[in-house]
Amino acid sequence: MSREKIVLAYSGGLDTSVILKWLQLKGYDVVAYVADLGQISDVAPIKEKALSSGAVDFHCLDLKEEFVKDYVFTSIKFNALYEGRYLLGTSLARPIIAKGMVDVAHKTGAKFLSHGATGKGNDQVRFELSAAALDPSLTTITPWRIPEFFNKIKGRQEAMDFAQEHGIPVKATKSQPWSSDDNLMHISFEAGILEDPAARPPKEMFEYSVDPKDAPDKAEAVEIEFEKGTVVKLNGKSLSPANMLVELNKIGGRHGIGRVDMVESRYVGMKSRGVYETPGGTILMAAHRDLEALTLDGAVINLKETLMPRFASLVYNGYWFSSEMDCLKALLEKSQEYVTGTVRLELYKGNVICIGRESKYSMYNMMVVSMDDDKGAYDQTDAAGFIKLHSLPLRAHAARAKK
Amino acid sequence: MSREKIVLAYSGGLDTSVILKWLQLKGYDVVAYVADLGQISDVAPIKEKALSSGAVDFHCLDLKEEFVKDYVFTSIKFNALYEGRYLLGTSLARPIIAKGMVDVAHKTGAKFLSHGATGKGNDQVRFELSAAALDPSLTTITPWRIPEFFNKIKGRQEAMDFAQEHGIPVKATKSQPWSSDDNLMHISFEAGILEDPAARPPKEMFEYSVDPKDAPDKAEAVEIEFEKGTVVKLNGKSLSPANMLVELNKIGGRHGIGRVDMVESRYVGMKSRGVYETPGGTILMAAHRDLEALTLDGAVINLKETLMPRFASLVYNGYWFSSEMDCLKALLEKSQEYVTGTVRLELYKGNVICIGRESKYSMYNMMVVSMDDDKGAYDQTDAAGFIKLHSLPLRAHAARAKK
Amino acid sequence: MSREKIVLAYSGGLDTSVILKWLQLKGYDVVAYVADLGQISDVAPIKEKALSSGAVDFHCLDLKEEFVKDYVFTSIKFNALYEGRYLLGTSLARPIIAKGMVDVAHKTGAKFLSHGATGKGNDQVRFELSAAALDPSLTTITPWRIPEFFNKIKGRQEAMDFAQEHGIPVKATKSQPWSSDDNLMHISFEAGILEDPAARPPKEMFEYSVDPKDAPDKAEAVEIEFEKGTVVKLNGKSLSPANMLVELNKIGGRHGIGRVDMVESRYVGMKSRGVYETPGGTILMAAHRDLEALTLDGAVINLKETLMPRFASLVYNGYWFSSEMDCLKALLEKSQEYVTGTVRLELYKGNVICIGRESKYSMYNMMVVSMDDDKGAYDQTDAAGFIKLHSLPLRAHAARAKK
Amino acid sequence: MSREKIVLAYSGGLDTSVILKWLQLKGYDVVAYVADLGQISDVAPIKEKALSSGAVDFHCLDLKEEFVKDYVFTSIKFNALYEGRYLLGTSLARPIIAKGMVDVAHKTGAKFLSHGATGKGNDQVRFELSAAALDPSLTTITPWRIPEFFNKIKGRQEAMDFAQEHGIPVKATKSQPWSSDDNLMHISFEAGILEDPAARPPKEMFEYSVDPKDAPDKAEAVEIEFEKGTVVKLNGKSLSPANMLVELNKIGGRHGIGRVDMVESRYVGMKSRGVYETPGGTILMAAHRDLEALTLDGAVINLKETLMPRFASLVYNGYWFSSEMDCLKALLEKSQEYVTGTVRLELYKGNVICIGRESKYSMYNMMVVSMDDDKGAYDQTDAAGFIKLHSLPLRAHAARAKK
Repeated sequence: MSREKIVLAYSGGLDTSVILKWLQLKGYDVVAYVADLGQISDVAPIKEKALSSGAVDFHCLDLKEEFVKDYVFTSIKFNALYEGRYLLGTSLARPIIAKGMVDVAHKTGAKFLSHGATGKGNDQVRFELSAAALDPSLTTITPWRIPEFFNKIKGRQEAMDFAQEHGIPVKATKSQPWSSDDNLMHISFEAGILEDPAARPPKEMFEYSVDPKDAPDKAEAVEIEFEKGTVVKLNGKSLSPANMLVELNKIGGRHGIGRVDMVESRYVGMKSRGVYETPGGTILMAAHRDLEALTLDGAVINLKETLMPRFASLVYNGYWFSSEMDCLKALLEKSQEYVTGTVRLELYKGNVICIGRESKYSMYNMMVVSMDDDKGAYDQTDAAGFIKLHSLPLRAHAARAKK
Repeated sequence: MSREKIVLAYSGGLDTSVILKWLQLKGYDVVAYVADLGQISDVAPIKEKALSSGAVDFHCLDLKEEFVKDYVFTSIKFNALYEGRYLLGTSLARPIIAKGMVDVAHKTGAKFLSHGATGKGNDQVRFELSAAALDPSLTTITPWRIPEFFNKIKGRQEAMDFAQEHGIPVKATKSQPWSSDDNLMHISFEAGILEDPAARPPKEMFEYSVDPKDAPDKAEAVEIEFEKGTVVKLNGKSLSPANMLVELNKIGGRHGIGRVDMVESRYVGMKSRGVYETPGGTILMAAHRDLEALTLDGAVINLKETLMPRFASLVYNGYWFSSEMDCLKALLEKSQEYVTGTVRLELYKGNVICIGRESKYSMYNMMVVSMDDDKGAYDQTDAAGFIKLHSLPLRAHAARAKK
Repeated sequence: MSREKIVLAYSGGLDTSVILKWLQLKGYDVVAYVADLGQISDVAPIKEKALSSGAVDFHCLDLKEEFVKDYVFTSIKFNALYEGRYLLGTSLARPIIAKGMVDVAHKTGAKFLSHGATGKGNDQVRFELSAAALDPSLTTITPWRIPEFFNKIKGRQEAMDFAQEHGIPVKATKSQPWSSDDNLMHISFEAGILEDPAARPPKEMFEYSVDPKDAPDKAEAVEIEFEKGTVVKLNGKSLSPANMLVELNKIGGRHGIGRVDMVESRYVGMKSRGVYETPGGTILMAAHRDLEALTLDGAVINLKETLMPRFASLVYNGYWFSSEMDCLKALLEKSQEYVTGTVRLELYKGNVICIGRESKYSMYNMMVVSMDDDKGAYDQTDAAGFIKLHSLPLRAHAARAKK
Repeated sequence: MSREKIVLAYSGGLDTSVILKWLQLKGYDVVAYVADLGQISDVAPIKEKALSSGAVDFHCLDLKEEFVKDYVFTSIKFNALYEGRYLLGTSLARPIIAKGMVDVAHKTGAKFLSHGATGKGNDQVRFELSAAALDPSLTTITPWRIPEFFNKIKGRQEAMDFAQEHGIPVKATKSQPWSSDDNLMHISFEAGILEDPAARPPKEMFEYSVDPKDAPDKAEAVEIEFEKGTVVKLNGKSLSPANMLVELNKIGGRHGIGRVDMVESRYVGMKSRGVYETPGGTILMAAHRDLEALTLDGAVINLKETLMPRFASLVYNGYWFSSEMDCLKALLEKSQEYVTGTVRLELYKGNVICIGRESKYSMYNMMVVSMDDDKGAYDQTDAAGFIKLHSLPLRAHAARAKK
């Protein structure tokens, strides 16, 4: 029988190198696949390592622009924060990685997929729900859930032994006491010494931003222009989505913007502790929210806020490709029709301070709000009737409560 | 016919002094009423001014502890932010002021109430909906909605002329180009030069906090202890609710914590621009949210987040005393049963950084989250079935979408 | 000064005839406007009466197809019931009547609008919010809120006196002890003897349906075919939207389908009692809901159900033309993509009984649900992991609750 | 090693008898447990069969009153319908059965639980989530998910063979081409010939109600009295919760009330088709909803309606004992404070027709709603201001939309 092809989401790191070899030993022809979401500086050594580790083929997809435009910006439009704080940098990356993996499978005729996500985390769910939604005929092999694999590769030492045994080159670098994952939107840290929620993460862990204490003493102003909820210009200059985020990460990072340290509820039933750096995304969301305040009807703001936790949970739980998500996205796009304008921010040692906003579609009408006199748009005696009618149920309730 | 008694929410400022006299001239016996929510340093001159302006009676209620305990802390428990940012400092104060006003009416036998809120703002609604809910038999007179009044007192100059004409002492202080309102929770600014949302508020306007740039270069750590969602200790020391907030305002204020500058949607249909300083409340909410992350089931976090905009709108719109609010409060109290524990924060130039949290009721189980090995509480092969079942609707959808 | 033109929503009845004349006497040139939503059998006498009462112009717009297609069917797609029972027949009609009124104003150059809705009901709100949204430059004159008018025309007798005095022909018909409003979707009854919620409406009041007790003893089966949530065929026959509803009203009416008797919460703060007959709409909604059960992902059903009360309140309260509604409609349309198929119903003495449904996009997969054996699509051992992971938060909670 | 005790939820039917024996053969001492939710006419033969099949102990708990009072009535108070139609009769029964099972385990010192629910359905989830929440130290054994068991007992024939082989008495009754489950609230049917959603269930399947066509030609009126949302009297007579439901089932059943035939979304990812008879529950819910319309503030009705799908999903999915449910119940109880009063209904051939309602806490005020004149409680000119202010955002939006 001929060997089956399997597409493996490959990073070049120890874990996926071990998995590559293990899959090969289990009888698969492994197609190594790398999704470039901005975390790749040089793909050549990764390709070389994949092929030298036994991959029959190697595909690297540059998904940076698509990732930022269709995933990151969509989430920003919803001001999406999972459990009040997490900007979903990893959660947004998984579905597009899965989409690329399915594309490579279609291109190469593979019927199997594989990835290096563990059996306790959210990423396995995100990968596999996405793949199931995109092509349910494909089968995913998850070594970290297969006892034969995880009972053998119990930890880093066993993985290194396995690598050595099979001639996989292993970098001599010291292992860090946490695990991390990065892309254009953020870098995340978890596990290891972070598992104690009472302990502060070490200063040297952070990569995308300086400590606010080490940020410049001088604030930096930025001007961000949106069209229909999507950022289009930074300080007057048009940039592609990916370049926009790269630039904002640089600026935000040097001012210590966008660090989050939190305990969160995983979809698979556990709490976990994560630390995130999302400099550019944090700036964008602050600006976007401020522009929405100027340009959205209060009722729409409330509607979006009410649905935001639902959207954030869908993203976090892996339902990017789902009917429910499609419905929420349709609502979202409609809501952004007039979110066009400019927001000026000041960045200073971890602070994002809105210092001005304007829009040709502003709902704010200076005449109407003026409190010194009445130029006609608003008759303050109107408020009497407004209050009277809204008070009727309260009055009726008070009357009966006396009984 | 004998004169009717009216209870006027009185501040001692120009506006309510003019209203006091005007009501008197209209034939009312005015009972001046001051609610002390922490904004009063010395009540004696206010009392003297009220009586010398013609009030027949004066009542000052110290509502500080009740305000913080039953209003501020309730809102903190809901992590309530109106339109994503406003901590509701003024919105929370209005209902308790109205409650005191109704109490004074009952004590003095008055059948009428009055206040100095304008006809374009939210406060008139909050005062009057609260009063209607508490005692619908009382009638509220709102001079700023009565043409005879507001056509005469068109602006500050006319108010000062009226005061002089009727012997009301006017402070020689220069008027500020904005209006403000303060209590133990916050100080708010609006109107005047703030009406242009593109313009930054002047540095000298702020009162409760230093500019983050002027805050100490050295961070300050605080430890906050909660019982059932309510803060009970600061740095190991028990404090009454009001004293707790006073202390947190001091600490937060010196580190530039809790400034918000935003455009918001008023209940009466307009957008307005508000600037707020809420140092202590901001610290408390950050700590509370962090402790909830540790102690609440993810489903309850999602439920609370979904309902939060509804709660915030009820508060903002003046429905503190309403059946709907009572229902939400019942849910809220139930949710806080296990929100007990300690959060450590670092305050630094506008930043509130969570640096550790612990709780005897923590949902976080270090064994379970460990990613290095499996101590038995969690079998990672379980995830396969979990994902499989959750993927079934996605698979079914994908299959039909091909048709 | 030349006289101003005003477009009056005119029915030909006593009230709007009196208003027409009154507006004329107040100096307006009245353009009488009739929106035909199916309630008009012969427009000629209405036109004649309008002109003979003093109208300078008369416009009748046939809005039947647009009403059913864009308003009624949209509401059916949302399975919208206000407060659990009301199918919104009148609420849906008001915005399209207002839209026609604005169109006639644009056509005739009128700057004023008028209608005969009272000052205590929902319809004034629906008319005027719709008109404000469509063209805020137009001014609406509401005689029933103008003291000069309502103090004069205190009741039916005064209206008849006024009519006689001004030569307006009045039908000799006896007034009915309730008021009613009808269109293609329903007929509604309120006021008069219906104001006592403890009293049953009289048998002779109903117009669109027979009493279930008088319906045929033999059930009638109908087959309804939908495409993307919209009904397209009845018993295999294509019909236009309006004709479809006419036909379904006939069929449903003869089987006593679609009567509702309820107390409801008006937007203007009061409770009121309404009785409705919506035969065709009731059948359609039952069929639509049943087809959604077959074709929608459960998550989308839940999303739609959660938002339905919000949609229904927006419709009821008069916000058909609003940004929030536009957002909800975008979500709704997306959700209906696969709601295509056929539902068979049996109608019998007030009952709508679903007796079969099928769809080429059915999410239901007979193989998967079969309980007798396992054909491979579903591995029941998967459920163990599914339950295990979902139980983790419950277990953690139980463990701490013991403390 | 001594044998472990296991509590088996036992019905006396073929499946659980086979499971009892199988568990015994696997080395367990089986404690047979029956929860009487009204489905038991005579417990003696069940006990005898259990013991003769090898059970070491037998416990029957009479949970009828607790079931109706704490489970059924709670769901009625929420007007809970899963996916718009299902009254949750089985979903409500599972958690109390699990609670009894855990109680028996505690009483007998058993550390294991077992039940006969299949691996594809909702009941396994409901049983096991409930048990995990009540005592996570107990382990549940689910034979229908254990390959050794389900590969042997593939269908009814194999079960009968196994029974015969082990001397378990099998009733000679013919198997029915569907499966059913009943308790005081309802009887449910699924599987077998019902698996085709296009096919109508056979007339002879129904047990709790007559076909509406066979119901009496004469309607029957009932009067139902509630206190704080809970039914307390039927036709003026106080009855215990269980007796109330028994009585209402009788009355409703003879009038063909409460049949539902639907496709639904199981928690485990599949669609299934269920048919239900819930005569008493249907009557109660109609009456309760009608009384709420009279006694609840519209805002509370909307709040409850918005949360109802969430409550229904929690019940359906097995989260009766969960923190989220506790929060929703706290809100629910608060909402019912004034839901006290009387509703009169007419039952006729499947119809439940509300014919009158009254309450000492009615929010409905006849004076206020009267449309003929104005007795002072409501000034219709108030509506002008109400509409004006609510129209402001619509006007602002219209103005910018022109740009």
